[in-house]
Amino acid sequence: MTKASVCTIGDEILIGQILDTNSYRISSALNEAGIRVNRMVSIGDDGEAIINSLRNELKTNDIVISTGGLGPTKDDITKAALATLSGSKGYVENAVQLEIIHRILYSRGLDVLDVNRAQALVPDTCEVIPNHLGTAPIMVFRFDKDVFGHPATLYALPGVPYEALGAVPAVIDDIKAHFPVDDICHRSIMVYGMAESALSKLIEPWEDSLPKDIHLAYLPNQLTGVRLRLSVYGGDRESEERRISAELDRLSAILGDNIYSYTDDNLQNAIGRLLKGTGKTLSAAESCTGGRIASLITSVPGASGYFLGSVTSYAVSVKENVLGVNPDTIREKGVVSQEVAAEMAEGVRRLTGSTYSVSTTGLAGPQGDGVNRVGTVCIGVSGPTGTKTFTRNYQNDRERNIERFSATALDFLRRFIESELSC
Amino acid sequence: MTKASVCTIGDEILIGQILDTNSYRISSALNEAGIRVNRMVSIGDDGEAIINSLRNELKTNDIVISTGGLGPTKDDITKAALATLSGSKGYVENAVQLEIIHRILYSRGLDVLDVNRAQALVPDTCEVIPNHLGTAPIMVFRFDKDVFGHPATLYALPGVPYEALGAVPAVIDDIKAHFPVDDICHRSIMVYGMAESALSKLIEPWEDSLPKDIHLAYLPNQLTGVRLRLSVYGGDRESEERRISAELDRLSAILGDNIYSYTDDNLQNAIGRLLKGTGKTLSAAESCTGGRIASLITSVPGASGYFLGSVTSYAVSVKENVLGVNPDTIREKGVVSQEVAAEMAEGVRRLTGSTYSVSTTGLAGPQGDGVNRVGTVCIGVSGPTGTKTFTRNYQNDRERNIERFSATALDFLRRFIESELSC
Repeated sequence: MTKASVCTIGDEILIGQILDTNSYRISSALNEAGIRVNRMVSIGDDGEAIINSLRNELKTNDIVISTGGLGPTKDDITKAALATLSGSKGYVENAVQLEIIHRILYSRGLDVLDVNRAQALVPDTCEVIPNHLGTAPIMVFRFDKDVFGHPATLYALPGVPYEALGAVPAVIDDIKAHFPVDDICHRSIMVYGMAESALSKLIEPWEDSLPKDIHLAYLPNQLTGVRLRLSVYGGDRESEERRISAELDRLSAILGDNIYSYTDDNLQNAIGRLLKGTGKTLSAAESCTGGRIASLITSVPGASGYFLGSVTSYAVSVKENVLGVNPDTIREKGVVSQEVAAEMAEGVRRLTGSTYSVSTTGLAGPQGDGVNRVGTVCIGVSGPTGTKTFTRNYQNDRERNIERFSATALDFLRRFIESELSC
Repeated sequence: MTKASVCTIGDEILIGQILDTNSYRISSALNEAGIRVNRMVSIGDDGEAIINSLRNELKTNDIVISTGGLGPTKDDITKAALATLSGSKGYVENAVQLEIIHRILYSRGLDVLDVNRAQALVPDTCEVIPNHLGTAPIMVFRFDKDVFGHPATLYALPGVPYEALGAVPAVIDDIKAHFPVDDICHRSIMVYGMAESALSKLIEPWEDSLPKDIHLAYLPNQLTGVRLRLSVYGGDRESEERRISAELDRLSAILGDNIYSYTDDNLQNAIGRLLKGTGKTLSAAESCTGGRIASLITSVPGASGYFLGSVTSYAVSVKENVLGVNPDTIREKGVVSQEVAAEMAEGVRRLTGSTYSVSTTGLAGPQGDGVNRVGTVCIGVSGPTGTKTFTRNYQNDRERNIERFSATALDFLRRFIESELSC
């Protein structure tokens, strides 16, 4: 089996200043593609350490993928280290990357400086995969078996996560063209509205009855819920997919509408799929989620086809004057109440003329209101058949609460629209 | 200088199933304590790989801290690997940890099973630091200089983040008792409004004149701009801080108000600092950023003290009917225009009664409007002295554009409020 090592380069990771998410996301993608990640290593911005570490990884792996250290500034010394490691005699300019550099800087209204131009220079020992998302090219160093005792390839990717992850599909294609890679058959389903432990208990009999070669993984995420992934390594793809589908049918009968998608997905996409092309529209009224729900809804390309807009009513005055929440309701029931959530949802529907709406009012923390516990959220959903409200309680962690409140509201909205559309 | 390596053990990290946050948080704590983290390594649940990797790390580091692989289940094989690595002749029961195991399980209403009791067994080659937060003890293996050519210590911590991080203070105390530990002095400054390459060119003379022992790092981030970090290892903390401060004063004279903070920070915090306690308030009107600006502003604890609310006006009807944008302006200038941005900013100030406001209208992509290029954003900022507008151009990448449009708008707002407050 083809083995890979993922290396991140940069002092900022070693001193704990930034969290390395590249390794995680690259490993996840490699694994999905059937390439086993054997090790991950983080190295500082030190030429000798970079050379020694990469050499070590190349000795024991078929593939090494590095990210970072390729910026235009002086602390980025990876390229020189790679030149030394690969025995380069000099640098050559990559015309395709240079053109991309010009295009990117031009589009930002910036001049192309010498430091920018220098990014198109690569050691004469590498091949280039153009990086269309940034200025640093992706460098591919192929070592024949005399060097490390086996054929080995080093892919040097930029460190900016967006660029590094953008490069991964091309890297995987290249790996597949040069190394034996088993087929892996994965299927994901997305579940929201159940704690991982409750879910795990509920599906335990099904899990125990799975054939030994079908692997189940739980991938919980506070914004998207729990992703359940079934995988089979090797075998004929078509027949494996049929086998997995049969298991998913059984699972679907157990979980019902807690499943919101049969592919890797998120709630805002699921809502988009429900609304696109129906002529139905959506709006939001947010208090404690502070714009996060609107932000999630509009992260879906084409959201302008159904999302009209939203009001973030952080101040009571905005709830009353813009959304038309009755001051008496606030006085009698409190700002964090299902009644206010209902009036907010109805208010924003009236204001924007949307078919559906969702609203939140709650306490994300750290400060409470003296009445409700921090972590309380009241959610409203409204549509032609009426308005529904819910209350949920989470912990005292502002950042996490905003995410969970938003995801929970989107899930209630998803279920509400599903039931309305099926009427 | 005392050098450390942080190793995480577990297949779940290598297959990209969970994000490793232990390494990040342990490194951050070690670094603050003056212990330089030289490398981070992630290894799978494979005995031989664990032994080889830890041995390698011990050869080149004074201290190795591992986390994970110490659970009661069969896939946790780290303890046996550590016994082999340290030449252990057998296991001994640690009475203190056994008592903790009994206490923890009793408090959860669980019986103490053999697998639980076995967790108190440790190789006879190690010392134990009791783990009061969980069942697996912290094992300390001290190797004298004959083994790896220098005195080296291996600390094996449990993998549960809460337990691993809980162990770190005791580990640091132990390190300080056995190894020389220097002070480290770091300072960060935050810059927005300049591309990394332009910034690098502008400060090149300053950078070149820095004393050799003061290290500069660039840490670009699309939401927070470029973080410049100066570090000095060793020396007397107070005098090093004075030296770094003097260099930052020189840098400040070059960069002026492109610097928005002299600590690790973000734009929404900087805006919060400007507004908190002044009685001035803020609102936002967002089109293409879809709620992201409100979401960033409200991510700051205490934002309710100055942020009144926002309108996401995705549909033209919401721009006209809620924000009061003149339909003629939209017809004559187009939705994506500085004129519409100005009317949005003024409209949301009127609607909410805020002192200041910020607005965005643009094309995040992937679809354009046939007039403006995808990646174009018009930004408005409004306050008691009037309204200003700006246009900026980025690429065709929806997700990134939303982030950059939002950060750029916050930076214009930050500069606008600074200039208004200094009047």
